[in-house]
Amino acid sequence: MRGAVMYAPGDVRLEARDDPRILEPTDAIVRLPATCICGSDLWPYRGVDDYGWPAPMGHEYAGIVEEVGDEVRTIRPGEFVVGSFFASDNTCELCRAGYQSSCVNREAVGAEGTQAEYARIPLADGTLVATPEPPPDELIPGFLAASDVLGTGWFGAVAAEVGPSKTVAVVGDGAVGLLAVLAARHLGAERIIAMSRHAPRQKLALEFGATDIVEERGEDGVARVNDLTDGLGAHSVIEAVGTQESIMQAIRSTRPGGHVGYVGVLHDVELPGEELFYSHVHLHGGPAPVRRFLPELINLIWSRRIDPGKVFDLELPLEEVAEGYRAMDERRAIKVLLRP
Amino acid sequence: MRGAVMYAPGDVRLEARDDPRILEPTDAIVRLPATCICGSDLWPYRGVDDYGWPAPMGHEYAGIVEEVGDEVRTIRPGEFVVGSFFASDNTCELCRAGYQSSCVNREAVGAEGTQAEYARIPLADGTLVATPEPPPDELIPGFLAASDVLGTGWFGAVAAEVGPSKTVAVVGDGAVGLLAVLAARHLGAERIIAMSRHAPRQKLALEFGATDIVEERGEDGVARVNDLTDGLGAHSVIEAVGTQESIMQAIRSTRPGGHVGYVGVLHDVELPGEELFYSHVHLHGGPAPVRRFLPELINLIWSRRIDPGKVFDLELPLEEVAEGYRAMDERRAIKVLLRP
Repeated sequence: MRGAVMYAPGDVRLEARDDPRILEPTDAIVRLPATCICGSDLWPYRGVDDYGWPAPMGHEYAGIVEEVGDEVRTIRPGEFVVGSFFASDNTCELCRAGYQSSCVNREAVGAEGTQAEYARIPLADGTLVATPEPPPDELIPGFLAASDVLGTGWFGAVAAEVGPSKTVAVVGDGAVGLLAVLAARHLGAERIIAMSRHAPRQKLALEFGATDIVEERGEDGVARVNDLTDGLGAHSVIEAVGTQESIMQAIRSTRPGGHVGYVGVLHDVELPGEELFYSHVHLHGGPAPVRRFLPELINLIWSRRIDPGKVFDLELPLEEVAEGYRAMDERRAIKVLLRP
Repeated sequence: MRGAVMYAPGDVRLEARDDPRILEPTDAIVRLPATCICGSDLWPYRGVDDYGWPAPMGHEYAGIVEEVGDEVRTIRPGEFVVGSFFASDNTCELCRAGYQSSCVNREAVGAEGTQAEYARIPLADGTLVATPEPPPDELIPGFLAASDVLGTGWFGAVAAEVGPSKTVAVVGDGAVGLLAVLAARHLGAERIIAMSRHAPRQKLALEFGATDIVEERGEDGVARVNDLTDGLGAHSVIEAVGTQESIMQAIRSTRPGGHVGYVGVLHDVELPGEELFYSHVHLHGGPAPVRRFLPELINLIWSRRIDPGKVFDLELPLEEVAEGYRAMDERRAIKVLLRP
């Protein structure tokens, strides 16, 4: 098959790779009618994360089950399935508590790369969730978004305890931040402040349910959120970037007793203890347990109540994966869909 | 009146000071039949916190109302009252959300010092809670504990989401940590692991409801808690120290999805973002909103269902305040009660 491999920061190539095959009796092989590039793929692309090169790329996936191992009981060939970037048994105590991305048997799906034609998914029964039947083409981008960016934005909103009558702020206007806006709307937030200075992203934020746009960043952004909330700060703030500036902006935009949900992978961040202490905020986040939300998200997409596929504003053939990375790196695209 | 004043680290003196008087129409003057020294008073005593010297000391109080300002409506002279180290209006949006220690009109009571015969309490109606009638002498230490260390330990347990069927660990065996054990017991925890290597404190922890004692600290303490929890970590961990080592011990002793309630004032602490991200814990804490819990705590003490006054294991006349500080600094006493 063909799959994307990163050889060094800035150097992504499509090349011939071995077809994945069943290695464990709990595996499934999934054929990918579409795949995509994640904002987190830009960390190694920009040289911030140090990978062992060459690295197969991609960890988001949705597609048709081709084959399953002997011990797979609930997932069947022919089903259209969605899963998360961490495979999980979905039976251990941590999974049952809703933290499948910390499953005691978790495996990173990304190690073999899903920017490709096929993927091997470990722990298929615990990891994959099937749609009622194979979906029409136009729903595939939405299910692909559910695999990571939607599930991650959703977890950010849940971690930030978004709910009715609350004012929510979202730091970060990438796909995760924009889908956190959508999640906040669905979860009943009264007011949703999207922090963005990019017109196409502002527009999508408003489509997804944002009520206010704030263009300022850092301390100026904090001041604007305070202005909009009687000087108290938002009840719930979702952090979807992962830098020192963005997490501090999130904490400082949250009222005492409020909640920060952080889903941007924190890079080179040190949280000052004394400021955190007196901020009185709740902090929760981490790698999203997407599996917790998949049944609900699949249902919402299937019934067309949400359309997270809108975050894909550039579609390319898989051959042009390198251009896809460039477009996201230069912020010419919010999120790139790749067609094998 | 006589009151304690710190002149420099290690130098506390009792001296004649002006009697406090009503300054604002919302003030009350309270006569203190007993007062006490807090673990947090040891930070400046040890030179870690830099105060403007000389500094009147003490921020815990319970006593008889002597006089109230013209605008005080609910608190009356002759009542026995308990309040917190932050005066609060108890009507603003943050107070109504249960965060009275971040009240938009909050005032630090400690500025004038309560290791004295009398104290001026601002915002009396919002700050003070009266007992049903003046209590018998033997209950006074318990009410004095409610003013800070009990309320703080209680908040730590609530912030850590302690509840039935949960395993709780408490980092810190000072008065706050010990009373967090008591709170965890009252809130229904199934198992309570007290971290302590001091026999008298271990004994009190067991009296307050601890089921396990762990003597190890740091990484060894983390390993012991993991051993006791099937390798997963505790559901709820209360941090009642405030150092880099203790907060990291708390985070690392908590299972993914679990809760850290931190009430030790964080000193020179930097939380590493990436470790926090992958830990999947919830973090909440800060200066305890003791006022939120006072009605319930007073009721529990009044009806003798809890006896937090047991944390006072040394009683001295106010004249010997300097010896009281020494005893706590040298860990010869858990907590010192002073009689004016």
